[in-house]
Amino acid sequence: MTAYDDQNVFAKVLRGEIPCFKIYENERAFAFLDIMPRSPGHTLVIPKAPARGILDIAEDDFAEVARTSKRIAIAAMRAFGADGIIIQQFSEPASGQVVLHLHMHVMPVKQGVDLLPAQTRKEDPAVLADHAGRMIAALRG
Amino acid sequence: MTAYDDQNVFAKVLRGEIPCFKIYENERAFAFLDIMPRSPGHTLVIPKAPARGILDIAEDDFAEVARTSKRIAIAAMRAFGADGIIIQQFSEPASGQVVLHLHMHVMPVKQGVDLLPAQTRKEDPAVLADHAGRMIAALRG
Repeated sequence: MTAYDDQNVFAKVLRGEIPCFKIYENERAFAFLDIMPRSPGHTLVIPKAPARGILDIAEDDFAEVARTSKRIAIAAMRAFGADGIIIQQFSEPASGQVVLHLHMHVMPVKQGVDLLPAQTRKEDPAVLADHAGRMIAALRG
Repeated sequence: MTAYDDQNVFAKVLRGEIPCFKIYENERAFAFLDIMPRSPGHTLVIPKAPARGILDIAEDDFAEVARTSKRIAIAAMRAFGADGIIIQQFSEPASGQVVLHLHMHVMPVKQGVDLLPAQTRKEDPAVLADHAGRMIAALRG
């Protein structure tokens, strides 16, 4: 497997070189809004440690990504009045992945409303700022 | 949220009331082949404890489902010469879920080969038995 490249876009987000709508972080994990959301509240949960995907991430880091994804899912249900959650994670280019820093998609869904197709439309930053505020408030419980 | 129903099909698999192609288990997690695989080696990782989905599963159980999914992913890469991994998890009926015992899909993928559409074709049990054997061997390292 190719080595981790620290110039990937999420490594830059973690270093603060690229802005993001951050909604949560702890020692091992970091969560921010997808700028091309497939549903309102679509969040990406990533490890702080370098990892391309599920194959090379440390088990403890992946476990924490999972724990954080659950917290995000519960908050998203509350923040957006969602009815369910879809989780996706794509590892290595064969999966369609282009950003090689592991990210777990946490997507709230409403009954009868399909997800938007992947990567079709950048959301208005004002909308994302509002959604981030709702998620942060929901996480505070 | 509706309560957990212990008559769901994966609860029956866990109790041994329905057969499965088991490939791994530990104290908290259990892994077996999807009988309608979207790719060779398509595996389901579930918690042994009752949980409908990501919203009600205990954090430690979800963390172990994640750790086990990583082990399965690494084994599947080796067993099937895969090039990448796709992870999916659907919680609550709004996500399209029909089996309300949490299951993480771990699907090995090859470069240039799309996943089969979901739930289209039951695989030949002889093929599944062969795939389970390969996965078990790969997990043993």
